[in-house]
Amino acid sequence: MSLHTPSPSVRLTQLSGGVCATPGVKASGVVAGLKPSGSADLALVDAGRPVAAAAKLTTNQVLAHPVVVTARHLHDHRARAVLLNAGSANVCTGPDGLALAEESAAMVAKELGCATEDVLLCSTGVIGRAIPREPFLAGIPQAVAALSPEGGSRAAKAIMTTDLVAKESAVRVEDQSGSCVVGGMVKGSGMIEPALATMLAVITTDAPVQGMILKAALKEAVQHSFNRISVDGCMSTNDTVIVLATGTAPQPPSLSAFKEALTAVCADLAEQMVRDGEGAKKVMHIRVTGARSEGDAVEVGRAIATSDLVKTALAGGDPNWGRILAAMGAGPVRFELERVVVSFGPVTVCRFGVAASFDQGLAAQQLKGSDVHLTVDLGLGEAEAVFLTCDLTADYIRINAEYTT
Amino acid sequence: MSLHTPSPSVRLTQLSGGVCATPGVKASGVVAGLKPSGSADLALVDAGRPVAAAAKLTTNQVLAHPVVVTARHLHDHRARAVLLNAGSANVCTGPDGLALAEESAAMVAKELGCATEDVLLCSTGVIGRAIPREPFLAGIPQAVAALSPEGGSRAAKAIMTTDLVAKESAVRVEDQSGSCVVGGMVKGSGMIEPALATMLAVITTDAPVQGMILKAALKEAVQHSFNRISVDGCMSTNDTVIVLATGTAPQPPSLSAFKEALTAVCADLAEQMVRDGEGAKKVMHIRVTGARSEGDAVEVGRAIATSDLVKTALAGGDPNWGRILAAMGAGPVRFELERVVVSFGPVTVCRFGVAASFDQGLAAQQLKGSDVHLTVDLGLGEAEAVFLTCDLTADYIRINAEYTT
Repeated sequence: MSLHTPSPSVRLTQLSGGVCATPGVKASGVVAGLKPSGSADLALVDAGRPVAAAAKLTTNQVLAHPVVVTARHLHDHRARAVLLNAGSANVCTGPDGLALAEESAAMVAKELGCATEDVLLCSTGVIGRAIPREPFLAGIPQAVAALSPEGGSRAAKAIMTTDLVAKESAVRVEDQSGSCVVGGMVKGSGMIEPALATMLAVITTDAPVQGMILKAALKEAVQHSFNRISVDGCMSTNDTVIVLATGTAPQPPSLSAFKEALTAVCADLAEQMVRDGEGAKKVMHIRVTGARSEGDAVEVGRAIATSDLVKTALAGGDPNWGRILAAMGAGPVRFELERVVVSFGPVTVCRFGVAASFDQGLAAQQLKGSDVHLTVDLGLGEAEAVFLTCDLTADYIRINAEYTT
Repeated sequence: MSLHTPSPSVRLTQLSGGVCATPGVKASGVVAGLKPSGSADLALVDAGRPVAAAAKLTTNQVLAHPVVVTARHLHDHRARAVLLNAGSANVCTGPDGLALAEESAAMVAKELGCATEDVLLCSTGVIGRAIPREPFLAGIPQAVAALSPEGGSRAAKAIMTTDLVAKESAVRVEDQSGSCVVGGMVKGSGMIEPALATMLAVITTDAPVQGMILKAALKEAVQHSFNRISVDGCMSTNDTVIVLATGTAPQPPSLSAFKEALTAVCADLAEQMVRDGEGAKKVMHIRVTGARSEGDAVEVGRAIATSDLVKTALAGGDPNWGRILAAMGAGPVRFELERVVVSFGPVTVCRFGVAASFDQGLAAQQLKGSDVHLTVDLGLGEAEAVFLTCDLTADYIRINAEYTT
């Protein structure tokens, strides 16, 4: 039960290298001095020249300055590089924050020899605290100098905050028309000093897909991946997913095969993010079947995935199907209690809206491992979807309460 | 900053006695044997004869059987008694659960000498587990025998689950027309075996208010009280607020004075419930001012109150205004960041959307006590509202994760 199931008409092969799996893409991660820990905190991804680009940005009303700049620079659907920093989110920092964001883009452009509009920005860290100007700007020439075709994992490390592991994914997709590569990295789960679990993702590809088609492909891939996970239901002011498409694949596959690969990489990165959720010990794969529409299945999954009571039951290893039904009942999708069947792994715990007869020990066993598989069948139709969440643990509280700004 | 501010045209005097503060009302709380702890678990409130009655019931799609029965029995807007049990929520228990609910109402009616339709029901406890029939039904004659004009607090204790304190409130309201009494009790914060933080409230009054007017008054009072609090954002399958109006007040006050008293009692009970929220150590009083409408102010309050990141920052004593703005930005109400001012007590931490200059120690001091006062001014209009929430602590996790069904 993962977010993406490849169709039989394409062949996906996993690659290493993250964003640098795409030929011609270089990346770097350097220490600019923005994290108190002294770890790498500034990353750069460079496609080598202006290429087709698209982004999905947070829908939070409070927009970070780098998000505003990225949206503005993408008006022509093209970009060359993405500069990413950890340590400050550069939001609620006033006109100075916006000016600094623009200045950083201009400096990257100057160093790379491209237009300022070809540089996109991502920031993650504390809200309302300015990025310290000098170390930030001084880090940019360093990051440019360190660019390398092997720099993908250094970039992925530099954007980590409370993330415990660097998160990369890359695949080669092949169909009868040809093949291309999609590679990406993501950070997400929290902050150096927790504020919001911002997610930042950069994806690269050599597929020749441009403009509105690239934008639509990204939107669809995000809907089937990052929009089907929840760590704590909190939307960041900085959430950003960027794709850079170099178009250099010598014999590219069909558009649908490219979309499969893009969705597969997004789905893999999304699952890695849930697994690395703040304080999380377990991933719950929620498969909703028998829905009237895929949209309904997703929303039922979301209602379950965002319930603190479901997430604490998961932490406690409790096959508490009552909380699942109550969360569904409080959600937006109409269903008929008398048709609902709930199972953990192969153990059905609720059949047609009432307790099934099951072995309590066997049911509890299904919740013991790091991956819990919940299936909710609505019995109303043929549509289904998978949604991922993690458990809510005392460590989430510790990370977000005991560490203070 | 409490949920209700009395208008100067009425005088409210606090009374003891809870539901029994209203003349003629008797109550009891007895041990039927439904709680493993052996504490009282069955409560009865008796108005002495069929009187005007109204209820607000959960809007969860998954409805408990007692909720269904109560809705059915209230079609004539009249009732005499309310039977409440802890230990099982009697939901997802199939036709047998509905039959047992109806049988319990009929038994109360027979013992009291009234029609079955004059008995309302409330249950709280584990979802999907049947109420053990024999001890439940055997407890009913006991509960009837124990009815007493001094039984209010015993009833309030019998409905407790993970509640740490019994919660009652009563006032006498006077205006130039006359006076009446409103008294009530509530349980809410969790369960013996945690499943959902069901809230059950019974309110009595001697005001001569009936039918649709009583229903409308209750709806308004609930909107201004129980609908302006959040413990964990999870809606129960059993939430119920019932009001019984005996109409015996010799010289009742105006309808508006009665409404004030009803709202005051609901507001007091609601605040007690947040203070007793599972694992809660602190209550945050969120006052949203400068809104375009009261509805907007409430929704901004709700967006802040239901953010796990805000609630963990409260637990950590962190004046983290960034999380507040991000939660607002993810919410449904449009605002202008450049106008927003955020203060903890007298300390303004964010002015016009950017960090204010403030003493960090003084700001942290405002989050140290059991009551934290947050004011968010939107700068858009004249409307305002108060919303209450509690902190999200490791104890919430312990209560809901480590104790399993």
